[in-house]
Amino acid sequence: MSSVTHYEVSPRDGLQNEPEVVPTDAKVQLIERLVAAGMKDIEVTSFVRPTWIPQLSDATELVPRLPKSPDVRYWGLVPNRVGLDRALSVGLRHIATFMSASETHNKKNVNRTRRESLAGLREVIGLAKDTNVTVRAYISTAFGCPYEGDVDPAQVIDLAVALRDAGADTIVLGDTTGMGTPLQVKDVIERVVKAGIPLTSLAIHLHDTRGTALVNAYAAYEVGLRTFDGSIGGVGGCPYAPGAAGNAATEDLLYLFHSLGLESGIDLERAADAGHFLSETLGRPLAGRYHRYSAGSRERARARTSA
Amino acid sequence: MSSVTHYEVSPRDGLQNEPEVVPTDAKVQLIERLVAAGMKDIEVTSFVRPTWIPQLSDATELVPRLPKSPDVRYWGLVPNRVGLDRALSVGLRHIATFMSASETHNKKNVNRTRRESLAGLREVIGLAKDTNVTVRAYISTAFGCPYEGDVDPAQVIDLAVALRDAGADTIVLGDTTGMGTPLQVKDVIERVVKAGIPLTSLAIHLHDTRGTALVNAYAAYEVGLRTFDGSIGGVGGCPYAPGAAGNAATEDLLYLFHSLGLESGIDLERAADAGHFLSETLGRPLAGRYHRYSAGSRERARARTSA
Repeated sequence: MSSVTHYEVSPRDGLQNEPEVVPTDAKVQLIERLVAAGMKDIEVTSFVRPTWIPQLSDATELVPRLPKSPDVRYWGLVPNRVGLDRALSVGLRHIATFMSASETHNKKNVNRTRRESLAGLREVIGLAKDTNVTVRAYISTAFGCPYEGDVDPAQVIDLAVALRDAGADTIVLGDTTGMGTPLQVKDVIERVVKAGIPLTSLAIHLHDTRGTALVNAYAAYEVGLRTFDGSIGGVGGCPYAPGAAGNAATEDLLYLFHSLGLESGIDLERAADAGHFLSETLGRPLAGRYHRYSAGSRERARARTSA
Repeated sequence: MSSVTHYEVSPRDGLQNEPEVVPTDAKVQLIERLVAAGMKDIEVTSFVRPTWIPQLSDATELVPRLPKSPDVRYWGLVPNRVGLDRALSVGLRHIATFMSASETHNKKNVNRTRRESLAGLREVIGLAKDTNVTVRAYISTAFGCPYEGDVDPAQVIDLAVALRDAGADTIVLGDTTGMGTPLQVKDVIERVVKAGIPLTSLAIHLHDTRGTALVNAYAAYEVGLRTFDGSIGGVGGCPYAPGAAGNAATEDLLYLFHSLGLESGIDLERAADAGHFLSETLGRPLAGRYHRYSAGSRERARARTSA
């Protein structure tokens, strides 16, 4: 296999914690740039209750304005049945569900026990599959919990199997606060595969909180994983640490994989342009490396041209 | 082998391109923090002609003010015989020499052909070894040249062998502008080892220009390399791209290696504190991830305590 699949989360996970609400117009323009770069899977928004995350409360307004591209899959995050209905009502055919591998994070995040969450997800995933909607299921805190510390891999494997049995098409191992290490990433993936979930039904969602997103992605690649979530410019993540890194930066992931000789179908420079657009929209430099480098190269090229 | 050796370059390579001259006092305070964190190898300055790099023109003033720690090795960068004499005159016993694997970079950097540089280095290294001074020899552009593009690994291997034969104790593979890829890093290291230079006489000096410093470090680790250069906060690098990443960030490297169960002898939180000090001294956020994350954790801890 000589290609990787990229799943873009900047419009949803990337913007979710931004304190200033980004206008719907700017979100549409960002997504147009992502599509122009060749991205085929884009998580565009969340259908949580609008008052919970004001940044994403324009979900039903945004979706009808997305670029019409038959080969692009737009995904919506769905917390429950009400969210599923809202997503379906605006025509989405791809949804993402979520719950945590650790009890404390799950309770803090959705105010439910894991048992309650799993029961709810079984219902949501079942309903979605009944209407031929594609489902990915995030397992948050799969490599560590900010409240509990280490997370037993057995919990992650059990949950992955339960979500697969519920009908999820893709299981996404989420390193919610960037606690994963390369050895751990390999270990958990290998165990999930041994439990009967093929690599083609697995994805990884990494955060760069401590700088390890790319090295963890490479470790996952080494054991055969080929689907990677990323966020343009590395936007997203923890609102407590100003300037701290968030999601794995899409451009950095793509640069790495292209340099390994793998194809993604995505134009790296156009992806970097989306990073510049987002940086300008948010009015600050973003954590990703490659789009800054590419800005530097353009400056150098201009300097050479004008000299 | 369950440990890694860290070589700190922030006072020299890190500060070299900073436009504002950092006062000698602040450099001393930075180095005190590096020593307090447990670092044993610190490249403190450069003995190039003072007018070339004003930032490091205080070399002979700085060295006598360094903390007196018998188990710390202070290194000085030495371009030629005059530089060697200056380094020896202030009592340094560890020097670093440099030249490039690519002809164009070497010419642009030191205005000499590689042949001329190698002849000069043979003399400098020979003189240094005659007085029992320890020598590391940087091979710049070992994984790519910003002017020539790809660099033939055979050139790197030949140069490594020539420098080892000249007497260098350690050969340092330098990814000067962050062009290396994990597969290439593994390939070059394996070839150098096959050419007769043991892993224990090899180090790697990575830049994070495109976000790949840590993944390249991990690749080097996978093929047995154990000595890694780093710069606190990731300071250093290309002056053309504002905010672009520079050297591999020491704290990020240490966090990675500690998470792999390896010992470095360095206190990560104290290293991160040196990052905060340097960030305050330079008056801007630095590119490294971990020290920002650790700042965030302290803020969270304070928030919890006061709530």
